Amino acid sequence: MANTKPARGMRDFLPSDVRKRNYVIGIIKEVYESYGFEPLETPAVENIETLTGKYGEEGSQLIFKILKRGEKLDANASEKDLSDLALRYDLTVPLARVVANHRNDLPKFFKRYQIQPVWRADRPARGRFREFYQCDVDAIGSNSMLVEAELCAAVSEILSRLGFNSFAIHLNNRKILTAILDASGITIDKQTDALIALDKIDKIGPEKFQEELIERGIQQESIENFGRFMAAVYSKMDELLYSTETKNRTDFNKTVFEMIANFIGDNEQGKKGLQELREIFDYTNNNKNSFVDVALARGLSYYTGTIMEITLRDSAFKSDSDFVISLGGGGRYDGLIGMFGKEQIPACGFSLGLERILVVMEERGMFPKELSDSSADVLVTVWNEDAIGESLKLAAELRKENLRVLVYPEADKLGKQFKYADSIKIPFVCVLGENELAENKVTLKNLRTGEQETLGRDEISKRIKE
Amino acid sequence: MANTKPARGMRDFLPSDVRKRNYVIGIIKEVYESYGFEPLETPAVENIETLTGKYGEEGSQLIFKILKRGEKLDANASEKDLSDLALRYDLTVPLARVVANHRNDLPKFFKRYQIQPVWRADRPARGRFREFYQCDVDAIGSNSMLVEAELCAAVSEILSRLGFNSFAIHLNNRKILTAILDASGITIDKQTDALIALDKIDKIGPEKFQEELIERGIQQESIENFGRFMAAVYSKMDELLYSTETKNRTDFNKTVFEMIANFIGDNEQGKKGLQELREIFDYTNNNKNSFVDVALARGLSYYTGTIMEITLRDSAFKSDSDFVISLGGGGRYDGLIGMFGKEQIPACGFSLGLERILVVMEERGMFPKELSDSSADVLVTVWNEDAIGESLKLAAELRKENLRVLVYPEADKLGKQFKYADSIKIPFVCVLGENELAENKVTLKNLRTGEQETLGRDEISKRIKE
Repeated sequence: MANTKPARGMRDFLPSDVRKRNYVIGIIKEVYESYGFEPLETPAVENIETLTGKYGEEGSQLIFKILKRGEKLDANASEKDLSDLALRYDLTVPLARVVANHRNDLPKFFKRYQIQPVWRADRPARGRFREFYQCDVDAIGSNSMLVEAELCAAVSEILSRLGFNSFAIHLNNRKILTAILDASGITIDKQTDALIALDKIDKIGPEKFQEELIERGIQQESIENFGRFMAAVYSKMDELLYSTETKNRTDFNKTVFEMIANFIGDNEQGKKGLQELREIFDYTNNNKNSFVDVALARGLSYYTGTIMEITLRDSAFKSDSDFVISLGGGGRYDGLIGMFGKEQIPACGFSLGLERILVVMEERGMFPKELSDSSADVLVTVWNEDAIGESLKLAAELRKENLRVLVYPEADKLGKQFKYADSIKIPFVCVLGENELAENKVTLKNLRTGEQETLGRDEISKRIKE
Repeated sequence: MANTKPARGMRDFLPSDVRKRNYVIGIIKEVYESYGFEPLETPAVENIETLTGKYGEEGSQLIFKILKRGEKLDANASEKDLSDLALRYDLTVPLARVVANHRNDLPKFFKRYQIQPVWRADRPARGRFREFYQCDVDAIGSNSMLVEAELCAAVSEILSRLGFNSFAIHLNNRKILTAILDASGITIDKQTDALIALDKIDKIGPEKFQEELIERGIQQESIENFGRFMAAVYSKMDELLYSTETKNRTDFNKTVFEMIANFIGDNEQGKKGLQELREIFDYTNNNKNSFVDVALARGLSYYTGTIMEITLRDSAFKSDSDFVISLGGGGRYDGLIGMFGKEQIPACGFSLGLERILVVMEERGMFPKELSDSSADVLVTVWNEDAIGESLKLAAELRKENLRVLVYPEADKLGKQFKYADSIKIPFVCVLGENELAENKVTLKNLRTGEQETLGRDEISKRIKE
């Protein structure tokens, strides 16, 4: 028998999967649209030159390339000769291409969201797929921290509406990080190494972190300076942040701002970063979910200012970090959107981890019950072939009342039709049997309670909606 | 400067495009769901064996194949060695694969719709793209014509709700066609040729049609038999069908049933086809848009019973056929869904031409005006940097009232902010200027009428909704 599985690392979404995915996507869209973000869609397939050189050595290996059509194969053919197209690898490069291509058609401040699949030839693993959705939102054209403030507010609203009530927004700024490293005495050529290690501190702990810095050839004294500062912040975190009182969290942020300011001294870029970060907190009136996280380092080659991440813990702000799930992140990347054009365009974005959100919601049973339930509100039976027209007519009447109606798709024994309705969890059955047809009535049975009653045709929908 | 165009034959969808597409897709989904159809999604990428041999010689050439990853290229490599995956070419083969793979998880009568892009390496032309959406609905597991009746009803409802009020559903049956060819004396080995010619009769006219049959080696006498029968039906069509009275259309169908019955005589398969076609009309109570079209021949190797097509004319049922647009078609194909398994599974489906529908709606200006309009209901101005927090707070209040609110994304001159709102067609502007901030009021300006008034913050949303 033929292999009927989807391709490796890819998934079929059966109806209950699609309903759950669409439920989450629907809320995301609704919230983003309420903030004035507009939908953009780009093709799955891009010219290979559009993607080449945009994702580094490692990313480049993971791009799915499409074979040229109708070409003669050559003994000396290289991969470059064989392929002219490739599958979309992320949503940021296509956005940059669209902005360059349509600069005159797009508003000056272009706020777009895009929820589409991307493809990566990664080794599939639990929760890692070769086809998965990205869910990006980006605001282009403004340097103001107002943008960051709105992104934090929008993402918070999405998670709240999905039913997450304990998540944390980690905020940091690339300029602050650089200033902290400068002030520690870590030279510019070692800063990327230090940040790569910092990015892992959550997983490896502070001791391993120090070891790694030594291995990377950073001077003992600088490591100690850096470590002392981080330790001081972390101790404030334990003292103030992991408290349940919002007031203490605000105090924490204030305290950390002062600690950073003292530590970085007169570093101009650092002061600018600090000012930017302060503005975000001011603009959001200290959003209760946000806090300064000096250890947040994500995606460094990319970001130029603010960096953000949303995490979920068993209980928010709990210091035990062995159960931290990232639900998404983003930041300001002023160099990227202009990659296809001449001008530098300020931009800030956030990418929600849609697949991760779906997994967590499934594990925690957070989907509304009706999504996993049936495809229809009511099943209309078919008494015999001569009565099919009548069953279809009743179904049409009920659909006019906004009910989802399944007509049993052939004439058969009533018992079988009831059993079928039950097996696919349809809550109501409308029986149009011999007597009902003769009297122009319908017997309505509630399969959950077992109750049934014979009603006039115009009473049915009202009763079901009750 | 880099090439920033999408790949050949592919399209970027800017926000107003996406809104229009989603509007149409939303109505299609809503109607199909009201008929108990459920959503299915399959991956863009399939194993190449899944697609191989399913689309004939010509189709096979148009499949986009994906280059294997990390393979050494070989001097003797064939295309087969180079590619293990391919892009989805249609939605039917993936459906058949899913049905075979999940036979036990799916309901006995599986009714699914699927609206996803497919990719074909076709030569791009006006209205023909290399990435385009298909929009399929299929009911699996029932032999009853109830299924066809529901498909006709659902598709009619979709087109009506989209605003098409003059379309025609052409119905025919593969078994009837075979019986008519038999009765004409056209031997089985020539029937496919005859049907291919028939499929084009709309375009080439009856004379060219006859010529083509002669060229294909069909006997003169058979052609005359066949031609006489078709001409007789067509003359009835002129007399009865292209009238505006529904009654005449019903008469037409009855008359054609009799003509077919007389012509095919005792042909068992033909009688069965005729019975099936009659049932569809009975079950739908002679849906005013449906008629028997003996010349309808579409996709022959595929279909085993009913065939259907929806067309649009400048005025429905007008005999002048130089402006006929097909908006979709389908039929019963009992052999196809079982291709990956052992059992034969009855199935009937319909594919709406989503891209065509969008083009026609655009040309005819059928989209609701608000879709091409702005992304937001109101713009909130930003007086200066110190007032950003207040502007964001007002925006949050208005969003709670279900308004879509754009905050001008930086502090700037008010005049510039008004101009921007106007340029992106936002109908209202909320001004939070110096005076308004001092008095805790908001000035609301209607950009369409030019009116403005200063209101309490809690009055704004009510006034906008008026």
